[in-house]
Amino acid sequence: MVNRKIILKKRPFKTVTEDLFQYITEEIDEIRDSQFLVDVEYVSVDPAMRGWISDAGNYSKPVPINSTMRSFGVGKIISSKNKNFKVNEYVVGWLGWQKFSLVDESKIQIKINPTTAPLSKNLGVLGLSGITAFTGLINICKPKKNDVVLVTTAAGSVGSAVGQIAKIYGCRTIGLTSTNEKATICKSKFGFDEIINYRQVNNLSESLKKIAPNGIDCFFDNVGGTQFDAVMENLNVKARIVICGTIGMPSFPIPIGPRINRTLLIKRAKIEGLLVLDYFSKYQEIYNKLLKWYVEGKLVSEEDISDGLETAPASLVNILNGLNLGKQLVKL
Amino acid sequence: MVNRKIILKKRPFKTVTEDLFQYITEEIDEIRDSQFLVDVEYVSVDPAMRGWISDAGNYSKPVPINSTMRSFGVGKIISSKNKNFKVNEYVVGWLGWQKFSLVDESKIQIKINPTTAPLSKNLGVLGLSGITAFTGLINICKPKKNDVVLVTTAAGSVGSAVGQIAKIYGCRTIGLTSTNEKATICKSKFGFDEIINYRQVNNLSESLKKIAPNGIDCFFDNVGGTQFDAVMENLNVKARIVICGTIGMPSFPIPIGPRINRTLLIKRAKIEGLLVLDYFSKYQEIYNKLLKWYVEGKLVSEEDISDGLETAPASLVNILNGLNLGKQLVKL
Repeated sequence: MVNRKIILKKRPFKTVTEDLFQYITEEIDEIRDSQFLVDVEYVSVDPAMRGWISDAGNYSKPVPINSTMRSFGVGKIISSKNKNFKVNEYVVGWLGWQKFSLVDESKIQIKINPTTAPLSKNLGVLGLSGITAFTGLINICKPKKNDVVLVTTAAGSVGSAVGQIAKIYGCRTIGLTSTNEKATICKSKFGFDEIINYRQVNNLSESLKKIAPNGIDCFFDNVGGTQFDAVMENLNVKARIVICGTIGMPSFPIPIGPRINRTLLIKRAKIEGLLVLDYFSKYQEIYNKLLKWYVEGKLVSEEDISDGLETAPASLVNILNGLNLGKQLVKL
Repeated sequence: MVNRKIILKKRPFKTVTEDLFQYITEEIDEIRDSQFLVDVEYVSVDPAMRGWISDAGNYSKPVPINSTMRSFGVGKIISSKNKNFKVNEYVVGWLGWQKFSLVDESKIQIKINPTTAPLSKNLGVLGLSGITAFTGLINICKPKKNDVVLVTTAAGSVGSAVGQIAKIYGCRTIGLTSTNEKATICKSKFGFDEIINYRQVNNLSESLKKIAPNGIDCFFDNVGGTQFDAVMENLNVKARIVICGTIGMPSFPIPIGPRINRTLLIKRAKIEGLLVLDYFSKYQEIYNKLLKWYVEGKLVSEEDISDGLETAPASLVNILNGLNLGKQLVKL
């Protein structure tokens, strides 16, 4: 049986380009004891992949050259030698950019019911995006009712979930985004109280001062750079900041910017880096919460789905350039 | 009855200089109900005073022009109209740079026994320095046995207490300091496992890599700037960093340096600004712990005591230039 997959051919130099990847076909190995074969229906495309394919210091080992690109996926088990994973069950986990994924239990996060929500949602608002939003906001920012919560990339899959979960917790939400189209969706669909198109204001820090004169209590940052700087100038005392991503910062050389030590001191603020993998022991528990809100209509999402495995590298380049709207997925 | 005091005449421009202050004498007011008069024996001189006399944004209101310089002090009650504070009792609190302090209860942190430890220790290792060290290390860094703890200004009153408390908690301690004389004291008196004179190494980051190849778990920073940068390059995963001071950073313009967002993300590290005033509700409790260690000989300290109230402004300039050794006090 023939598999189709995308492998990593070389590591990025400065920027991520499509030619780092190659589409290949190859025979699938025999299923060994405890393994099972998943027919993958959707795979995820994430900003974090920039780090996964780089050999710079990172939180996980880089994807080896010539191996299948690492990614989350959702699919149906079509063959199994593991009594805990039966044919026709649906699973979410590290399936990789490939049509068929031969895996063991260690690669799987959860089984899902394919009828409760569309399959694709399990990779976005009910998947890594939603779980990232939840853990960063709830475990690190610890929002209280009426706190002012600001999130960057507010129209994105993580940002939009942060905004909605913050509303569920009774907070006032401010989103930063890059286009008027995204701003409109943030207001109408994701219920943000305030949205700023940061590209259309002269002085982001001053704009924030006007709409949040008492300062930001919780800051969920996916970007870094000058947006980060502007928010840091508008913290409330005892602010909690989660660094979830740095998509607005070049990979190297290490960018320079205003030192934040004195701000942290004066505001007695707290910053923490978030890696969602650290919270995977609570995946099922958080998934259940997100699914409940989803079913109640409190947690909606946009998806940007490209068709066919071979579109995955171009989709990755797109999201790193901020050209997508919502969770980027590939349908196989 | 005539008081002697030092008042603030003007705010600093760039650097703190002696001529910002003026020594004056004036009549003491009548004691009103609930007040008492303290004969001040020692006053404290602290790096934080740079912030207190500035009108830049800070955690407390700036010291008003023409008013007594704010400071901690220790002294004996010599007259009282407050039944809870009796003549001959000793108190520690916000007594100011003055010989006689007419205060009410709100200015006092604790009463002390003047025979358990020398009076001056209540302003240093058993005072703000010790309480700052304890709260930053224990409440924010939360050290575990065998953690590697690094502290800047290791010979200073806060730094030396951090090192010793970390040893009490079973940690390995690394100190950064600026002279060989201080380095020797850090090793022989404060028991640091490793000391680096940062002025005598070519590449601080590389030096740290050699003595802490697995990285720094707890980083207690009093400095900011390039020492901060070097430590940030050597964090262990899940490092905890407390920003206690920024004495190595100019007040303005806001200095620039390497952005730390990606380091925080990759290391899932946490940084928090410490203001010891936030922990004053636990002052007595922490004091009791410090006093126990002091009596057991586990918590020693250096003091740099200048003689006479009029020396206070020069002493402040000295410590801001790193010229003191140990807790800077003025004996009145």
